Amino acid sequence: MTHAGHVISLVCLSLPGFTVHFEASQARRGHEQLIRLLLEQGKCPEEGWSESTIELFLNELAVMDSNNFLGNCGVGEREGRVASSLVARRHYRLIHGIGRSGDIAAIQPKAAGSSLLNKLTNSLVLDILKLSGVRSVASCFVVPMATGMSLTLCFLTLRQRRPNARYIIWPRIDQKSCFKAMITAGFEPVIIENVLVGDELRTDLEAVECKIEELGADSILCVHSTTSCFAPRVPDRLEELATICAKYNIPHIVNNAYGVQSSKCMHLIQQGARVGRIDAFVQSLDKNFMVPVGGAIIAGFDDSFVQEISKTYPGRASASPSLDLLITLLTLGASGYKKLLSDRKGRDAGQGADNRWTHVLWLYVTFRCLPMPLPQRRRCRWHHPRGCGYVHQETGQVPEDTAERGTKSLPSNAAELDINIC
Amino acid sequence: MTHAGHVISLVCLSLPGFTVHFEASQARRGHEQLIRLLLEQGKCPEEGWSESTIELFLNELAVMDSNNFLGNCGVGEREGRVASSLVARRHYRLIHGIGRSGDIAAIQPKAAGSSLLNKLTNSLVLDILKLSGVRSVASCFVVPMATGMSLTLCFLTLRQRRPNARYIIWPRIDQKSCFKAMITAGFEPVIIENVLVGDELRTDLEAVECKIEELGADSILCVHSTTSCFAPRVPDRLEELATICAKYNIPHIVNNAYGVQSSKCMHLIQQGARVGRIDAFVQSLDKNFMVPVGGAIIAGFDDSFVQEISKTYPGRASASPSLDLLITLLTLGASGYKKLLSDRKGRDAGQGADNRWTHVLWLYVTFRCLPMPLPQRRRCRWHHPRGCGYVHQETGQVPEDTAERGTKSLPSNAAELDINIC
Amino acid sequence: MTHAGHVISLVCLSLPGFTVHFEASQARRGHEQLIRLLLEQGKCPEEGWSESTIELFLNELAVMDSNNFLGNCGVGEREGRVASSLVARRHYRLIHGIGRSGDIAAIQPKAAGSSLLNKLTNSLVLDILKLSGVRSVASCFVVPMATGMSLTLCFLTLRQRRPNARYIIWPRIDQKSCFKAMITAGFEPVIIENVLVGDELRTDLEAVECKIEELGADSILCVHSTTSCFAPRVPDRLEELATICAKYNIPHIVNNAYGVQSSKCMHLIQQGARVGRIDAFVQSLDKNFMVPVGGAIIAGFDDSFVQEISKTYPGRASASPSLDLLITLLTLGASGYKKLLSDRKGRDAGQGADNRWTHVLWLYVTFRCLPMPLPQRRRCRWHHPRGCGYVHQETGQVPEDTAERGTKSLPSNAAELDINIC
Amino acid sequence: MTHAGHVISLVCLSLPGFTVHFEASQARRGHEQLIRLLLEQGKCPEEGWSESTIELFLNELAVMDSNNFLGNCGVGEREGRVASSLVARRHYRLIHGIGRSGDIAAIQPKAAGSSLLNKLTNSLVLDILKLSGVRSVASCFVVPMATGMSLTLCFLTLRQRRPNARYIIWPRIDQKSCFKAMITAGFEPVIIENVLVGDELRTDLEAVECKIEELGADSILCVHSTTSCFAPRVPDRLEELATICAKYNIPHIVNNAYGVQSSKCMHLIQQGARVGRIDAFVQSLDKNFMVPVGGAIIAGFDDSFVQEISKTYPGRASASPSLDLLITLLTLGASGYKKLLSDRKGRDAGQGADNRWTHVLWLYVTFRCLPMPLPQRRRCRWHHPRGCGYVHQETGQVPEDTAERGTKSLPSNAAELDINIC
Repeated sequence: MTHAGHVISLVCLSLPGFTVHFEASQARRGHEQLIRLLLEQGKCPEEGWSESTIELFLNELAVMDSNNFLGNCGVGEREGRVASSLVARRHYRLIHGIGRSGDIAAIQPKAAGSSLLNKLTNSLVLDILKLSGVRSVASCFVVPMATGMSLTLCFLTLRQRRPNARYIIWPRIDQKSCFKAMITAGFEPVIIENVLVGDELRTDLEAVECKIEELGADSILCVHSTTSCFAPRVPDRLEELATICAKYNIPHIVNNAYGVQSSKCMHLIQQGARVGRIDAFVQSLDKNFMVPVGGAIIAGFDDSFVQEISKTYPGRASASPSLDLLITLLTLGASGYKKLLSDRKGRDAGQGADNRWTHVLWLYVTFRCLPMPLPQRRRCRWHHPRGCGYVHQETGQVPEDTAERGTKSLPSNAAELDINIC
Repeated sequence: MTHAGHVISLVCLSLPGFTVHFEASQARRGHEQLIRLLLEQGKCPEEGWSESTIELFLNELAVMDSNNFLGNCGVGEREGRVASSLVARRHYRLIHGIGRSGDIAAIQPKAAGSSLLNKLTNSLVLDILKLSGVRSVASCFVVPMATGMSLTLCFLTLRQRRPNARYIIWPRIDQKSCFKAMITAGFEPVIIENVLVGDELRTDLEAVECKIEELGADSILCVHSTTSCFAPRVPDRLEELATICAKYNIPHIVNNAYGVQSSKCMHLIQQGARVGRIDAFVQSLDKNFMVPVGGAIIAGFDDSFVQEISKTYPGRASASPSLDLLITLLTLGASGYKKLLSDRKGRDAGQGADNRWTHVLWLYVTFRCLPMPLPQRRRCRWHHPRGCGYVHQETGQVPEDTAERGTKSLPSNAAELDINIC
Repeated sequence: MTHAGHVISLVCLSLPGFTVHFEASQARRGHEQLIRLLLEQGKCPEEGWSESTIELFLNELAVMDSNNFLGNCGVGEREGRVASSLVARRHYRLIHGIGRSGDIAAIQPKAAGSSLLNKLTNSLVLDILKLSGVRSVASCFVVPMATGMSLTLCFLTLRQRRPNARYIIWPRIDQKSCFKAMITAGFEPVIIENVLVGDELRTDLEAVECKIEELGADSILCVHSTTSCFAPRVPDRLEELATICAKYNIPHIVNNAYGVQSSKCMHLIQQGARVGRIDAFVQSLDKNFMVPVGGAIIAGFDDSFVQEISKTYPGRASASPSLDLLITLLTLGASGYKKLLSDRKGRDAGQGADNRWTHVLWLYVTFRCLPMPLPQRRRCRWHHPRGCGYVHQETGQVPEDTAERGTKSLPSNAAELDINIC
Repeated sequence: MTHAGHVISLVCLSLPGFTVHFEASQARRGHEQLIRLLLEQGKCPEEGWSESTIELFLNELAVMDSNNFLGNCGVGEREGRVASSLVARRHYRLIHGIGRSGDIAAIQPKAAGSSLLNKLTNSLVLDILKLSGVRSVASCFVVPMATGMSLTLCFLTLRQRRPNARYIIWPRIDQKSCFKAMITAGFEPVIIENVLVGDELRTDLEAVECKIEELGADSILCVHSTTSCFAPRVPDRLEELATICAKYNIPHIVNNAYGVQSSKCMHLIQQGARVGRIDAFVQSLDKNFMVPVGGAIIAGFDDSFVQEISKTYPGRASASPSLDLLITLLTLGASGYKKLLSDRKGRDAGQGADNRWTHVLWLYVTFRCLPMPLPQRRRCRWHHPRGCGYVHQETGQVPEDTAERGTKSLPSNAAELDINIC
């Protein structure tokens, strides 16, 4: 509150027998200084804040929103138009959401606090992305949607620029939602099988370039690459893909789902953007920032393109993921976040989840028995499957040389195991 | 907890001098009975619950999620992978989000509590939609996206079914986000100007049908109609539009943004579905249920189509809007919600917000000075503008006969007023 | 926070594209104005505050306490020395308690916020006591102890002034804790039986005066009267008792347990103090202010005596009851509290609880079977029991003429019913 | 809830497509097992609980209280008689307080949950006291009063047993509240100056015994010793004092204010009780358990005497300190608490606060200028002041040989420094 604290000090001093002594005022300035710095710099504070400072700041933001304005009689809108006080409370009375009909990153005049929350969170996240290795990132925003749906939004934005494109070049990665992201956006994934190098599955650059030549650059919406994945699949060769994209003038969207926590993934993106072309990279909030599921960050190296994406979201959006992220970043501080990073350094992103790999293997088989709905299947194009030995997770197809093995592994309870995909 | 309460009772009875008397047990059964009924019926309870019962129930749900499981040493995952205890708390430790990569309505095996929350909320909402007038609604789900983005999801789903469609027939309504919903989905809005009947702007049915004939049904993705709007625009003539859609076998998506609270809007949808074709109708959570901004309900009369939409969302989604809605419906109860409805009965939805109309008028002028980005503009087709006298909000075009008046009204501070759109 | 809000405004204004508009600033001033007024006047605000304003204010208070001060690295003491964040949160991080070793009403230099909370609560309560009818009350303070223990504190304070006193004159009231308050303080209650006037049990003024003459004023610590009670017992004749106390120069302590809500009780106290002598009157927090059990207000007409009582409490005390009361008074506002009063006007205090009377009757019998511990019993003096017909609740003695009836009523499950005393 | 969880499981299993799998049930049993163990053993769990389990348990307790019972329409008393939902929430809706008019440790039939909370907390504390070194402690209870006021309650209880006693033998300790505890209870402290041994001030056992002989055992209420103090004063020689008390049949009350955390203090008490007589020992909650200020534990080696003290408190008391303590002990677990102990092992209790010592020194001087109120002063008896060199903190008296030095140190701002006493 602008003057309320001041009011307290002044009045207290005049109460007989009541003196707010020097130390208290000094300490108040400590909290104020933290908030001032945050707002001036728009960066994640080096040291995490106490819960006390965080809630104080959120309350400050809340009173800037019109639902918390006071009327003549001194009573506010009593939770705005929020019916439940449990709900009002859990959102710190920040209930206007973020963005406006025209732009998810826009300012709402009736919700200065929510708007500031949004701007600030995006600003802090940008700082963290730089700090985590993508030093030349230009712009980013938090969107309250899954990584997959956020990728869809990127593809839909590119469609405006490339009205004739029909295909997305996609080095295969066995995750349902990234596959679906392309289908949902209305494009045809052109799956590029990976090549086995030693015991790693790596991007088949030749096949990518060959496919571009075959289909024609204009018919291709973008190359859709992936950084974070499970062994034996390794991150895509981003530098080379980015170089190819630059050469053919094709956009390049990177699925960096849980890659912020991996210095390797972040380095790949930074290098890719330096030597070639990366239009946007998308990451999940929950995996990278330990917040509840349901948000993503869309980032890029060209501010105007990132803004174009944010303007593609029609309507105002939930502020809940932004709020979670802001609280978490203020709690951890840059040093706390860096500590998390260093704890994982040297590990590939997601390595800790290797046991999921087994499930995925089972699923390959499962999917053979439970074929995907036709629409998706029909529109898939396979590019020379090189016998990587696995059943395809998304389509249920099994390359001929591995079909038998796949069949053999079929467990009797395949249908139940299906539910174990994350 | 399955037996914990039981444990308390038994142990207490055995403590010397400590007897839980009859009344207490009876009262416990009261809470239990409420929860049992809720789960058995999947309906909004007639009377609202106390905050005490609601939080008890949410805690029950939370312990069903794997992040709240206890390890050998008796300690849970300590907030799962949520870094901040403020964040964990505000979500009642339900942090897994809703849905799975394959389907936003699917069950997560690792998050039985979150999944039940999701299923239950959808079930309660279905009940409320019926209760509010759309008695034959078959299925619905809450999606953590704005109404506009939810409409986009519907359009993207229809694309799978109608791969050759390019156009959406849209009786004009001056709201930016519904316009954008079509553009973002990659379709070309075919704007049908309304006709002035008395002092009301009503759907031009002739023009709609005439346009369908002209473009050909196959090239049309759907008719996109609107129920809730501001005077002088009145709700679209849904019965007739639904009949036309049935006749030409064209899908019909209804933007019912804040129409759940209006018996008139709900009646129109019910009638439209009865006499003709309505594939889905979409409504905002915040406006209809007094929760924070950022969620919508997608509902329809054919369960399989609604499921198809839910399966189009790639990835897991935020549970936050579902949680808000569940808390709110349990707080209000069906009777509380009905009371809200009757308080508004006879009023057109949104009538109370008439003063926004002025802003919209100003904006018309503003937009003339601040033309929309080219991509949107280029793809708009105008259908015989009948001189309704207004500048077009989205494109900035002014019908010739009204251009002068528009220009005259241009305020000196037009740019600033721009930010007043909601 | 003194400048933090200000900081927000200034910085925001300088962010490109971000303007906190006029209305927001104006609204902030609304909250500030409420807090300023509260601090300047020290009175209960006429209209209740929103939860939003209340929590904002409590956070302001919390940052004034040294446990919430920030160190060099920007991090506070992380909940001070409070181990659990659940505990810190539920006390709004106000953990220093109230008072100092020398005085429960004193200011703690390390806890300016907690101290202000304490002073302010006492100031608001004083306002409410005046508003409820005791217009000439001079001073009061909240003490985190039961009404009974608070009466004990008053008696212990009087002992300093009257070192030779051994007796307390007490018009009988069948409540265990007021009886115990005297025993615990080390005094001998001189029980004055009430007289039956019509169907009411009224103070026997003659007997009181006669007893004073008999024992000698110097041997009497005080008269201990009661306002709030159940039929057929009516409030003591305070005016006359106060006049007698003034005549004999004997202190007068009034047990006004749940009398603040009764205009009749408050009027009696006001009149008693006007025409005679009342040294202190004590009331319960929970019954009068709808807060959790465990606090009382000690009030009086002579500031120096009330201060003397507050200085008798050795050590710092829990701030919890004060915090509850402050929140409640700010929530209700003076008008909300007055509304509660008028809802009950004309009713005797406690009349609504008449069904407890039956329990009490049963208890009389019960106690006959379960005699009190000897120490209490031994020290009771009975003053001419006039056959009021009841067994004595505290001592288990039954006047001879009613003994038989008492025995007859003995229920078979007497022991169980015993637990129904409040 | 007895069956609610069960209800969830059963119903879920019957929902099509919804199966609560094995792991979830197993995990629920984990929480249940923790609660069952807690109730069966009444001991602090070895490992701390997660916040999730703690809040689940507190909610279980809350629904056992009558204010949270549901009526016919399914709605509870809506926060009982608590006016503010902020207040209800912060107490987890446990608002009945603890104890009954007859006994602060008694069970309230209308508040089974609050009563269980109370019993359980006392049981856990007993466990912790044993674990901390006083292995033979028989009984204890939490009282929502300062250590000083709790000592007063002990003295008042002893008065019932020793009606002719007037004096309390008190080896001097310069803390205002323990001095006041005796004055408030109406007794005359007989101050025994400590003797300087090396650079330590130790109990003058000779002087104690000599004083007992002089005054006569019957005239002495008790010996009031202290364990926790600041250098140069060391803990009293409890073994020898306890032996003297046993010899003369004089009760012995120990002020163990912040001694639970000190293995040395706890060992002294254990030894004292083993070789001689200790009737009760009193400790502060905040200092020993890192909870907010305002509670104490009264413990003893004879259950009937401890019960006698608890029955001396007239009225029901605040449950707030008990709730804080229960949450904290469940959060830390026995192992967490032991870790705290071991972190401090070898240190004298309170050693960390040595810088307060300076303030105390200043205060000596200050008090010379600001003499205490007469009543306290008048009743002090000095026992051979041995020139320990300090001004007496409580009375303002300065032994002649040190008066000059005291005067010299008088700071110009003495009055201000006064407020620095804790």
